[in-house]
Amino acid sequence: MSQQHERWSPPARDPDDDTPRLECGVFGIWDVPEASGITALGLHALQHRGQEACGIAAFDGQGFHTERHMGYVGDAFGGGDLNKRLPGRAAIGHTRYSTAGGSFIRNVQPMFADLEAGGVALAHNGNLTNFLALREQLVSEGAIFQSTSDSEAILHLIARSRRPKFLERFTEALQQIEGGYALVALTNKKLVGVRDPLGIRPLVLGTLDGKCVLASETCALDMIGATFVRDIDHGEMVVIDEKGLRSFRPFPAQQARPCIFEYVYFARPDSVVNGRSVYEVRKRMGRRLAQETPADVDVVVPVPDSGVPAALGFAQETGLPFEMGIIRNHYVGRTFIQPTQGERELGVRMKLAPNRAVLAGKRVLLVDDSIVRGTNSIRVVKMVREAGAKEVHLRSASPPIMWPDYYGIDMPDRDKLLAANHSVEDITRILGVDSMGYLSVDGLYWAMEATRDPANPQFTDHYFTGDYPTRLLDKEVAEGRNEVRERQLSFLVDA
Amino acid sequence: MSQQHERWSPPARDPDDDTPRLECGVFGIWDVPEASGITALGLHALQHRGQEACGIAAFDGQGFHTERHMGYVGDAFGGGDLNKRLPGRAAIGHTRYSTAGGSFIRNVQPMFADLEAGGVALAHNGNLTNFLALREQLVSEGAIFQSTSDSEAILHLIARSRRPKFLERFTEALQQIEGGYALVALTNKKLVGVRDPLGIRPLVLGTLDGKCVLASETCALDMIGATFVRDIDHGEMVVIDEKGLRSFRPFPAQQARPCIFEYVYFARPDSVVNGRSVYEVRKRMGRRLAQETPADVDVVVPVPDSGVPAALGFAQETGLPFEMGIIRNHYVGRTFIQPTQGERELGVRMKLAPNRAVLAGKRVLLVDDSIVRGTNSIRVVKMVREAGAKEVHLRSASPPIMWPDYYGIDMPDRDKLLAANHSVEDITRILGVDSMGYLSVDGLYWAMEATRDPANPQFTDHYFTGDYPTRLLDKEVAEGRNEVRERQLSFLVDA
Amino acid sequence: MSQQHERWSPPARDPDDDTPRLECGVFGIWDVPEASGITALGLHALQHRGQEACGIAAFDGQGFHTERHMGYVGDAFGGGDLNKRLPGRAAIGHTRYSTAGGSFIRNVQPMFADLEAGGVALAHNGNLTNFLALREQLVSEGAIFQSTSDSEAILHLIARSRRPKFLERFTEALQQIEGGYALVALTNKKLVGVRDPLGIRPLVLGTLDGKCVLASETCALDMIGATFVRDIDHGEMVVIDEKGLRSFRPFPAQQARPCIFEYVYFARPDSVVNGRSVYEVRKRMGRRLAQETPADVDVVVPVPDSGVPAALGFAQETGLPFEMGIIRNHYVGRTFIQPTQGERELGVRMKLAPNRAVLAGKRVLLVDDSIVRGTNSIRVVKMVREAGAKEVHLRSASPPIMWPDYYGIDMPDRDKLLAANHSVEDITRILGVDSMGYLSVDGLYWAMEATRDPANPQFTDHYFTGDYPTRLLDKEVAEGRNEVRERQLSFLVDA
Amino acid sequence: MSQQHERWSPPARDPDDDTPRLECGVFGIWDVPEASGITALGLHALQHRGQEACGIAAFDGQGFHTERHMGYVGDAFGGGDLNKRLPGRAAIGHTRYSTAGGSFIRNVQPMFADLEAGGVALAHNGNLTNFLALREQLVSEGAIFQSTSDSEAILHLIARSRRPKFLERFTEALQQIEGGYALVALTNKKLVGVRDPLGIRPLVLGTLDGKCVLASETCALDMIGATFVRDIDHGEMVVIDEKGLRSFRPFPAQQARPCIFEYVYFARPDSVVNGRSVYEVRKRMGRRLAQETPADVDVVVPVPDSGVPAALGFAQETGLPFEMGIIRNHYVGRTFIQPTQGERELGVRMKLAPNRAVLAGKRVLLVDDSIVRGTNSIRVVKMVREAGAKEVHLRSASPPIMWPDYYGIDMPDRDKLLAANHSVEDITRILGVDSMGYLSVDGLYWAMEATRDPANPQFTDHYFTGDYPTRLLDKEVAEGRNEVRERQLSFLVDA
Repeated sequence: MSQQHERWSPPARDPDDDTPRLECGVFGIWDVPEASGITALGLHALQHRGQEACGIAAFDGQGFHTERHMGYVGDAFGGGDLNKRLPGRAAIGHTRYSTAGGSFIRNVQPMFADLEAGGVALAHNGNLTNFLALREQLVSEGAIFQSTSDSEAILHLIARSRRPKFLERFTEALQQIEGGYALVALTNKKLVGVRDPLGIRPLVLGTLDGKCVLASETCALDMIGATFVRDIDHGEMVVIDEKGLRSFRPFPAQQARPCIFEYVYFARPDSVVNGRSVYEVRKRMGRRLAQETPADVDVVVPVPDSGVPAALGFAQETGLPFEMGIIRNHYVGRTFIQPTQGERELGVRMKLAPNRAVLAGKRVLLVDDSIVRGTNSIRVVKMVREAGAKEVHLRSASPPIMWPDYYGIDMPDRDKLLAANHSVEDITRILGVDSMGYLSVDGLYWAMEATRDPANPQFTDHYFTGDYPTRLLDKEVAEGRNEVRERQLSFLVDA
Repeated sequence: MSQQHERWSPPARDPDDDTPRLECGVFGIWDVPEASGITALGLHALQHRGQEACGIAAFDGQGFHTERHMGYVGDAFGGGDLNKRLPGRAAIGHTRYSTAGGSFIRNVQPMFADLEAGGVALAHNGNLTNFLALREQLVSEGAIFQSTSDSEAILHLIARSRRPKFLERFTEALQQIEGGYALVALTNKKLVGVRDPLGIRPLVLGTLDGKCVLASETCALDMIGATFVRDIDHGEMVVIDEKGLRSFRPFPAQQARPCIFEYVYFARPDSVVNGRSVYEVRKRMGRRLAQETPADVDVVVPVPDSGVPAALGFAQETGLPFEMGIIRNHYVGRTFIQPTQGERELGVRMKLAPNRAVLAGKRVLLVDDSIVRGTNSIRVVKMVREAGAKEVHLRSASPPIMWPDYYGIDMPDRDKLLAANHSVEDITRILGVDSMGYLSVDGLYWAMEATRDPANPQFTDHYFTGDYPTRLLDKEVAEGRNEVRERQLSFLVDA
Repeated sequence: MSQQHERWSPPARDPDDDTPRLECGVFGIWDVPEASGITALGLHALQHRGQEACGIAAFDGQGFHTERHMGYVGDAFGGGDLNKRLPGRAAIGHTRYSTAGGSFIRNVQPMFADLEAGGVALAHNGNLTNFLALREQLVSEGAIFQSTSDSEAILHLIARSRRPKFLERFTEALQQIEGGYALVALTNKKLVGVRDPLGIRPLVLGTLDGKCVLASETCALDMIGATFVRDIDHGEMVVIDEKGLRSFRPFPAQQARPCIFEYVYFARPDSVVNGRSVYEVRKRMGRRLAQETPADVDVVVPVPDSGVPAALGFAQETGLPFEMGIIRNHYVGRTFIQPTQGERELGVRMKLAPNRAVLAGKRVLLVDDSIVRGTNSIRVVKMVREAGAKEVHLRSASPPIMWPDYYGIDMPDRDKLLAANHSVEDITRILGVDSMGYLSVDGLYWAMEATRDPANPQFTDHYFTGDYPTRLLDKEVAEGRNEVRERQLSFLVDA
Repeated sequence: MSQQHERWSPPARDPDDDTPRLECGVFGIWDVPEASGITALGLHALQHRGQEACGIAAFDGQGFHTERHMGYVGDAFGGGDLNKRLPGRAAIGHTRYSTAGGSFIRNVQPMFADLEAGGVALAHNGNLTNFLALREQLVSEGAIFQSTSDSEAILHLIARSRRPKFLERFTEALQQIEGGYALVALTNKKLVGVRDPLGIRPLVLGTLDGKCVLASETCALDMIGATFVRDIDHGEMVVIDEKGLRSFRPFPAQQARPCIFEYVYFARPDSVVNGRSVYEVRKRMGRRLAQETPADVDVVVPVPDSGVPAALGFAQETGLPFEMGIIRNHYVGRTFIQPTQGERELGVRMKLAPNRAVLAGKRVLLVDDSIVRGTNSIRVVKMVREAGAKEVHLRSASPPIMWPDYYGIDMPDRDKLLAANHSVEDITRILGVDSMGYLSVDGLYWAMEATRDPANPQFTDHYFTGDYPTRLLDKEVAEGRNEVRERQLSFLVDA
């Protein structure tokens, strides 16, 4: 494969950083002045969904203008002349996750193609589970891929369709892809939003002064002062143009199975996803966790920031005091040099600091949103003990993570997932805690105010259950070839 | 005056941003391998005391190596080759505040001078109240100032001293300066730390494997894994060299009057300042605030992040639920373009987002650490109302700010201080709240577990009382000349 | 069309700069250690053929590595770690011309495609005369173009070929393109060089320690210490791989018609093009010019640097003294601000300075290589007069330029070509010279030691004669559509 | 000493590069609109005197504005907004030489000081021979040096003078410095130019629309369209202000001894220095060289560019053909990696290419302006031989360089000067030439149309004769201390 050297390096990821990462956030707006400026704001609100890179494509009635940058939205699209650089009344935007290795501007979205009938820009959150098969077929037919992104396959399918109209071409392309995705596309005539047949990835519709807005989460609507209208339905395609908004159903009807991990970790707490407040769901996780895994402790301390709502729920349920026993350092930068002096590890201290006044001499219960490899937990627990805690108990506000994802969440290989390889007893010992507790799968559904239907689960919860909502063609092909293909393609480093 | 154009622009400060800013953080370490790398970590932990610029000076036994950069510590001093760039077993470092206007690399510290007997590097947190007088005298004697920083005056005083030994020269210089300061100096033979006669600015001593460390706050000790030993005393000079640590008292003895605003806003909550946990003091402010200004509300919501401990204290005192009704966006960048669309103001939304699930339909009590001009409060209150709050009550965990500072805190002119110009009734109306409450000065001392002695206040609290702890020579001279000199020199934009 | 904003701006081209510009230089090498480093050197020697951008693609036995940069070769590929960044024993490279307007990294070569059978990198000097037709057809078949470069069309033709082997695919693609070109392609198995059926653009073969090298000019061989072997023949394809070098003839046999402008302006004087020393040809142009257009003057002065050999030939033929009456400033940068002071124009003085000691009081004969729009000549003549010359006579060492090019030379539209619109008498007046003389077309052939065969000219000389060597499909189509398409596509600014 | 790391690296100097380098060029203008823009142009014309860094200081009637940059004038001060960045009707500027090692923005000029009576900016070409002594004295009195530049000593002397008026202070400072220098200073009231008592370094006066201009060479006047008025006299101080131009003589009268190396190498050929055309002097050197060291050869070839005029003179004197047998590559960049392949050295080929058509089979006489260490000559000779020359003869258009300089020319230590350590016979063998010839000192004076007066030489020619025009205090002090101090301070790398 070709390699394009780029100057930008993403903020170094601590190799022991243990948070899962989502692929992307998308945004689109139609028929407003200064569409690029509004899109930049929307992307800023979605920055938590992807910090590596970002891009905006705008249409000004005559041509498309695109910019794609490594780095934060504020650095790339803040400042004064954006609406001159990217003029127009329609725009889409994208924020992209951070990979550990090489990152390439070629892979940054929105992607653009000049079709026979005009240009199309595409922004994509999610992952196609049949991308490798599609790519092999397309390349054998003469397609030249400029990126290693599965999003480009969609553009090639659109370009190669024999249908005359764009929506027909797009529909034909959608019918060939599999996986979880939210797509936002912009042509010279329309803005289109699509959510995969199961609604795995989220997409919402809002209005700003009567004009349509599409975004991954409602927090982007709040940022620009737009009003939330509704979620895009699973398997729905909305087309926004001078005629207004029309809804299409390009797929056979299915029951929805949105990703439950959006509630556990990815979505912002102030977002409302599929009709539920993320903050309230997380607090309910904490409340249920307190019922399922009580502990005799002095204080409840969140691992900030994602553990805060569940810790509050736990404290409110139990009446135990909630305290900020760990302080987050908001300034990050490149990795510092590990001092050779002594055996101290920088580890978690770059981001988290112990608040000795809260911890010293106490029996501390830590609440985290989830535990992936456990490396981070080991360090936090050690730090809390060194700050003088008498006991340290850990609670995960989600069930044990045991299976990899194939729909746009970057998790480590299965053999690195702590809970996939160890019992809770083992984990208690490995993490060095006095007690360890996970929320149950039923408890997670309780927090969603649902009861899991094992035949047709209301959410996709495969990370906890192994119950995948779609076939996994690329994985199956790879297994047929005796290739190890544990990870989804979106996260392969291209080299 | 000369102007040196620089490429770097500090992150734009929202003109309505209402937080006071401290000048600087300082750090120093003696006789350890990789002193620069450790100093970089210490500065990272002190980043909250100054985000505009940072610098490190190291001594490698033969020469000094310095680097000074605009921007964050992590960007400037992260990465792999720092100990090669700045080799040596002794180093000092500095982080600097952000000004609204031009920022100049010339003003970044540590400052360095080649004296007859060898080099000296100096890092300074605070402000000299007689700097203009000193500068006039020094320039008339032929000194060439390369910066507009008051720190440079100290170097010139040292350079011009007729005393043979460095400590004598330094002492002679210290006896000529007035104001509040914590200084860290490095020569080829020693590391020196000084705290002003009243101990206005903080400075602590720690040990790392038996070697001495100086830092503005204990959180820097935690970051590098050092052990806290004690605060440097007010008016104390500590000299660290191959003989170990010696303590000197270059000034006549006085009662200490450390700055109480360190507890209100500046210091990190996990720091212990002058023997008191900042987090615990803030929680006590919230508890006392609840006693002094109760309210009939449904929920207590902090203005994050600095309002969190006081809000927790308020909630615990009253039994009201504590909720994260406002979510902070951790990603910042350059200012975005204000959309012309509609009348919505970006205002506070770039940094803070309303959590509707908590706020809608509720009687909300907001707790903030302090209110300076009130511009930020107006926007937060408006945002909370727009998110559906039924009532909005605001509480300030510190007393009304009525007087400017001259010791290193950048506050607006007196005519812009909300409480200096309006009654609480007016303020209630201006901020658009249902009720408004401030902590009393006595309440603030209660939180410090003290009772204010009006004859000899235990802390300097002039922002609230107008009771300045020193004479203000530059201000008096300016007033004698009928010049308006409301602001301390450190914050004048050099142009 | 999409627009990708880039940070780099090419050195601003003086709007009155009057030099024609060539598109590119190409280079390739096979089976040597540190192939990228050698390619960088070769490109440095070809920098005169393109200053806007450059790129290298290397193959290391397993994968391709490419870098493409705006700016000079020395800036992009100098420095220490190139062979680590672009490892491998085979590499190709490209330098690209500078456009007046936007320049886009997407258009920089080598271009790369992942085909079914493996990757292919392509570097191209020249212009396809049927590119628009090919592009329309390819896009209608679903090809997605990522650039506006005609080189990409060749890649799409290769990718879409149904033939199984790369050489067959490449041959099939070559048989569909028209125009003038020298191509260098690299696959995981071979290095391929092709020259168009008429040999319009140059390409030479050399050896370095027995390994094959391809380059646009022999000066690149000299730079790397390689030995010149022979010119690639017109219509020849050479394939270099582990079996050695094989020669193919993918086109019907035709008489060669290499571009005569390579001798007039483009090639470096130390290069040997098609068996002739460029320096010697230029000197012969000057000698013949002296015979055809003698003048009664005191001194012969070249317009540096390209006029130097012809001026030497003129002086040697006539016995007149040759003097450096105009000094070239080798330091260039961004355009300076035109002072408003007085009416002086910066014009030519940024690059050329009058040497008064040579010019004052003299009858001066200036020799330039060619005159395109005449704007530069006007300024040089004016400058020489202001320096005190008594008379100024101008001689062009090439015939009047009257027709645009379609094979990779960027010339202005026909209505801007001075000689296409004015008689020599007019031109004498316009340029403000005492006499004006052009070399004749026959004189130019004499300098080439040839007699022009009007039925089958030995060189393509269409700029002087309008006798184009190929059909011009895109131009004809555009004229059929009543579109003005005076300029070749390679030079359209993409926006 | 302190070290300030900077990002910019000067273009790497080939360790075998053999050209001497001059320290600086200076420029100043008074009372014109857009003074900065004109200064930038003037500096661009003086770029050959210093390529490392450049700076401009402008005064706008109220304050000074300065910018100092590493790199070329065109990069630093080209572009559109210079007159806004540096507004005012008066400005001075400086270009600075390139050192082999570290380069520091602190050392870039103009330097600036805020004196009691107002600001002063200073630009300096030359070197003080008593700088170390001055510096020691000033530091012992408490002066803080911010640079390692001798120019800063002048500012400190001005600042410390007890005289009330600026001109008196400046004069007092001048009377304490020794060496060779041309100074341009700007205050809020006047522009001042000074040439050292012997006129070692050049400085000329011109007018632009009746306003005064100062510049190192006349080529800067030509660039801005100004008219040459006269050289500033040796030991003259000109003061330009609202009263016009006044001339002062701050030093005792002495006979002038300008630097003869300006004619040999430094000045641009189109400049007129001390009343003599540099180009004509160089041609006369070549003519005399032909007389003194004739050779039986086929062709005269200059080592470009500085050898061109002498080679022309040589050819004209002898009637031998002058040919461009070596072609200069105008594109330079960072040093390329030396290929490990074979034994070929990149050496000189990065900059110079052999023109085989001229050289092959010929007896070649190369003319260079001067030979310092000989490393470059060895490579050029080797390259010319490898291009097929039958014989290679080398001529230096200046006498053997045998002594170091202390007045602003950066030459290697004496033990590295070829002619200081070897006879002409040795040199012939070392350089690998068939014959070697130097111009005689008398011949050099003949080229200047003078006869050398051994008692009072009309020029300083110490590089050839060891006859230094001033005492060398720093050198003497160092020798007294048994320190090796072969090199002048300006060229010491500060580290």
